[in-house]
Amino acid sequence: MDIREIWKELGIDLERHDELLEALPEVYEEIFLSQENRPERMSYFDEVVADIHGARVRELYEMRQEGKPILGTFCVYVPEEIVLAAGGVCVGLCGGAEFPIPDAEKYLPRDLCPLIKSSFGFLVSRLCPYCQVATVIVGENTCDGKKKMYEIMSEHKDVYVMEMPQVKDEEGLEYWHEQLIKFKEFVEELSGNEITYESLLDAIERVNAKREAFRKLYELRKHDPAPISGRDANLIAQIAFYDDVDRFTEKVNELNEELEKRVEEGEGVAEEAPRILVAGTPMPIPHWKLLYVVESCGAVVVCEESCTGTRYFEREVSTEGDDVEDLIKNIAEAYMETKCAIFTPNDERVKDIIKKYKEWNCDGVILYNLKFCQPYAVEHSKIESRLREEGIPALKLESDYSEEDVEQLKTRIETFLESIA
Amino acid sequence: MDIREIWKELGIDLERHDELLEALPEVYEEIFLSQENRPERMSYFDEVVADIHGARVRELYEMRQEGKPILGTFCVYVPEEIVLAAGGVCVGLCGGAEFPIPDAEKYLPRDLCPLIKSSFGFLVSRLCPYCQVATVIVGENTCDGKKKMYEIMSEHKDVYVMEMPQVKDEEGLEYWHEQLIKFKEFVEELSGNEITYESLLDAIERVNAKREAFRKLYELRKHDPAPISGRDANLIAQIAFYDDVDRFTEKVNELNEELEKRVEEGEGVAEEAPRILVAGTPMPIPHWKLLYVVESCGAVVVCEESCTGTRYFEREVSTEGDDVEDLIKNIAEAYMETKCAIFTPNDERVKDIIKKYKEWNCDGVILYNLKFCQPYAVEHSKIESRLREEGIPALKLESDYSEEDVEQLKTRIETFLESIA
Ligand code: SF4
Ligand code: SF4
Ligand code: SF4
Ligand code: SF4
Repeated sequence: MDIREIWKELGIDLERHDELLEALPEVYEEIFLSQENRPERMSYFDEVVADIHGARVRELYEMRQEGKPILGTFCVYVPEEIVLAAGGVCVGLCGGAEFPIPDAEKYLPRDLCPLIKSSFGFLVSRLCPYCQVATVIVGENTCDGKKKMYEIMSEHKDVYVMEMPQVKDEEGLEYWHEQLIKFKEFVEELSGNEITYESLLDAIERVNAKREAFRKLYELRKHDPAPISGRDANLIAQIAFYDDVDRFTEKVNELNEELEKRVEEGEGVAEEAPRILVAGTPMPIPHWKLLYVVESCGAVVVCEESCTGTRYFEREVSTEGDDVEDLIKNIAEAYMETKCAIFTPNDERVKDIIKKYKEWNCDGVILYNLKFCQPYAVEHSKIESRLREEGIPALKLESDYSEEDVEQLKTRIETFLESIA
Repeated sequence: MDIREIWKELGIDLERHDELLEALPEVYEEIFLSQENRPERMSYFDEVVADIHGARVRELYEMRQEGKPILGTFCVYVPEEIVLAAGGVCVGLCGGAEFPIPDAEKYLPRDLCPLIKSSFGFLVSRLCPYCQVATVIVGENTCDGKKKMYEIMSEHKDVYVMEMPQVKDEEGLEYWHEQLIKFKEFVEELSGNEITYESLLDAIERVNAKREAFRKLYELRKHDPAPISGRDANLIAQIAFYDDVDRFTEKVNELNEELEKRVEEGEGVAEEAPRILVAGTPMPIPHWKLLYVVESCGAVVVCEESCTGTRYFEREVSTEGDDVEDLIKNIAEAYMETKCAIFTPNDERVKDIIKKYKEWNCDGVILYNLKFCQPYAVEHSKIESRLREEGIPALKLESDYSEEDVEQLKTRIETFLESIA
């Protein structure tokens, strides 16, 4: 079956979809392919992007034909392990493109973070085959914007919403644990498959392997010169959200081998460039702007404290225990470690940022915020002064998916880099 | 003791405080005192405002000297009954003034709702004697902005934060109930007084009486012509948050008697004026702009579906039960009825708005939103289309505490009023 046939079957608005994809090759060439001394093993990820709505959509479409549930998600709190254990697949649907935002603004207020508007816009405009192929959307009550957006989204598609605690005390963890048990039951019913100790253990091991590959990749970025650019590493994190778990893990591990050699040989992508830690809101595909601008100004991003970065892979789920209940408990505990700003207080996050700044041998921190994201914006005001107390140079930046502020961002970043030179 | 001495003792920035109060009499004259055919019994409330940081602050100051705890609050979810039962007092601290917002913006991002910035600004600038006299601040994890603001506020003052569920299912209610038990223990420790069945029952009855007085007042506003203006009714709701419970109740009841006579005699404040229901975010004192502009355009506001309105007084706490536990349960259940947009889903709210539109014989609905309040903004997008389906004329407005948009608001409101004439 031709991929256009599949798109059509999925209800894609083909004409506008062509428009959406049109600009991609040029932008990708400029941001990624034109980089000097790129690791060769980036080729897999380049192919994934080149065929962004192709091969993987076909795989998912075929899975759906076989009756496997495909769960569209918007948050790293949704436990992929449970979905895999029931024979399903998770697909991250966080939108990173400006294109569908006007469609979203017909339903949602403008003063919402671009991630929310883009994600919602993709759904209502029928421009994203991943949205279309999803059996169900899994929301979570994290930030106000998403929480309330899911109410409107549910008028357009089946939405299952996970309830979240806002505090990580004992009761919060218990509440969260109960939500995971409910979610497991939901996934079992959806798939018609019972989740067994074996299937869940296997899923945990597979997802742990993916995270382990990431951890290695990020470890390698601690070296000077950095063996890979920030935008390439971030691209990999973006792809993690929708690629096949096992293939993806293998590809990251292959890349890691190449990077290890680079490190041994002292080879890197940027000699004597200021090393930057970017901390903040997620940067979903294709929101490449920030890292591109930072690196275009002569710095190298060596770590992203973000849900498209360390918050995605740091937690490891323990495989200890004797039954499904124990394993669910392990998932609950591991996931609760994620330091998202929607929790209060979230003081571990500032400690974590300081730790990462040191471990990755950074010269400065960029606190990045998607416009109108209030949880991270308020937190960053506080973190900025903590970093100042620690003598850590920090720059607070806010942006969205438009191209309008690129020059302004450049100026601010250049001034910052000069100040830490 | 002279009131200025008390202010000084409370750490008020006297010079700027004089500046803050300077403009009030003129504004109050224009908005309130110049109204034609005002109920005479508004005089008590006029006096309260004329002496806004005087007599009541003195009372609170003296209570504090006697060791009574004074709890500063920002949400109608904080149960006043429990505080009263322990011999304490609740003081609503939601800021409605533009004045301290620049002070807040030194610590908080600009893209937050003015209520949050004003409240925080009053605290850090030491301009509000109510903030200063409070023994402790009670926060609640409602919207993202407040939730994260309390983290920064706690660097300046003692803050106790109540955790909130986001969903009103059985588990949510249970979680909420547990929070109230914790809050009771906190208040008991703070005051050194044990809350008994008798003291709690008494407190419930007193607060119920306050709510009952409000319900009567709002019932009277169902009549045509309306016996009282919207801005006067709203002023009363604003004062409810910090006045003495019993005195306030008495004064509202006295006013109600006068209004009853008006109704009998067919007397009112606005003949043949379009009747407007305002639904949305709170309008804390002195945020009088919206109702003033609406009524200046020739309409009369007959009901406010708001936390400075019906959401404040609709719930009645049952007095049934045999012990403190039963009564706390009753409080939990009654409070959970409040239809705040931070809950999801919140479909009862749209039903409630339609019901009120009919019961108050309205001609149109204004969906009002404080800028950057995301929970209400998203909800209003949805509610607007529901109202349209019902054939109910609705206008969505967003504003803040500045005077800049008054002309623009007028134009939009006038056009709306013409369309429903
Ligand atoms: S930033 Fe928070 S809400 Fe967003 S994906 Fe990460 S964990 Fe989820
Ligand atoms: S970036 Fe912020 S506002 Fe946007 S979805 Fe994530 S947590 Fe919500
Ligand atoms: S609008 Fe919601 S958060 Fe604000 S005071 Fe009312 S109940 Fe509390
Ligand atoms: S108006 Fe909205 S944003 Fe402001 S404090 Fe209330 S719920 Fe929060």
